[in-house]
Amino acid sequence: MRLIPEPLNAQVFAPFGEVIEAGDAAPSFFINGGTTQRFHDLAAVTMMEEAEDSQGSRPVHAGISVFRGQARRFPMMITMLERHPKGSQAFMPLQGRPYFVVVAPPGENDEPDLSQLRLFYASGQQGVNYHQGTWHHPLLALEQTSDFLVVDRIGGGSNCDEYPFPDGQSYVIDTGK
Amino acid sequence: MRLIPEPLNAQVFAPFGEVIEAGDAAPSFFINGGTTQRFHDLAAVTMMEEAEDSQGSRPVHAGISVFRGQARRFPMMITMLERHPKGSQAFMPLQGRPYFVVVAPPGENDEPDLSQLRLFYASGQQGVNYHQGTWHHPLLALEQTSDFLVVDRIGGGSNCDEYPFPDGQSYVIDTGK
Repeated sequence: MRLIPEPLNAQVFAPFGEVIEAGDAAPSFFINGGTTQRFHDLAAVTMMEEAEDSQGSRPVHAGISVFRGQARRFPMMITMLERHPKGSQAFMPLQGRPYFVVVAPPGENDEPDLSQLRLFYASGQQGVNYHQGTWHHPLLALEQTSDFLVVDRIGGGSNCDEYPFPDGQSYVIDTGK
Repeated sequence: MRLIPEPLNAQVFAPFGEVIEAGDAAPSFFINGGTTQRFHDLAAVTMMEEAEDSQGSRPVHAGISVFRGQARRFPMMITMLERHPKGSQAFMPLQGRPYFVVVAPPGENDEPDLSQLRLFYASGQQGVNYHQGTWHHPLLALEQTSDFLVVDRIGGGSNCDEYPFPDGQSYVIDTGK
């Protein structure tokens, strides 16, 4: 089955998370003596605090990382999704490069509902913040290796569930290039 | 007194916060089947949780915002610093544009030590995460209006102290242009 890309906006993405985007639609106000426009609180970092098996010197915290994603080749078969049960995860492009976002709502048996799999085309000015537990595909950079700022929970305990698609279920992103 | 810009790196900035930068010096590993390099946990979001006078529907949280900073004009007089006593504050440039960072260590009487005021030139690939309570100047974009992703504590209670410099103390950023 071929996935058709939809343009990303806050409304269509609301079941899955927040779109991080400065613009007229975003709440904003001026600070710093009028020199800075603050597009305020576009996304909330959420996380479970407990760390039954926390390791290292830093306790559980929201950490800021950079993901450098290789460009994918299309047509591309989508064969799995993942989710982070203990925290939200935000991605913001750092070089203005677009990317793909694949998500699915929850279905039965603690699995994603693949019949409602969605493909969004995010512009290089749009970040996404997956709600805690949202099923999504790992980073899908497009034509070039691309850097993204990532904000997610770092700390003890398993925070990544993977769902490999059942045999016979195949979804394809075909950019036509 | 004229402030001389220093190049920014993790070591010189350590007393004030973290530098958010992907590169050979940053700890990283590969994820997503080898397609993504994760420069991991470059900065930690910290915050005080209590919200004695919290307002609105969201509790105290780390929020993700976009700051759109107007370009400053130089020479520019630096006449104040601010600090956020209840949380860290991270800035990451979204368009690869450099900016200035002005910080001071704590001095006496809960004031910044202006004799140790520092000016850093941050490249467009470098973010900063001010430690909770670090005295710093508001956003200083350079030649163009520039967007920055900001991660900071959002919620109840005053979280911004301002320190206007005493009369007669003037510091100037002069880029020579």
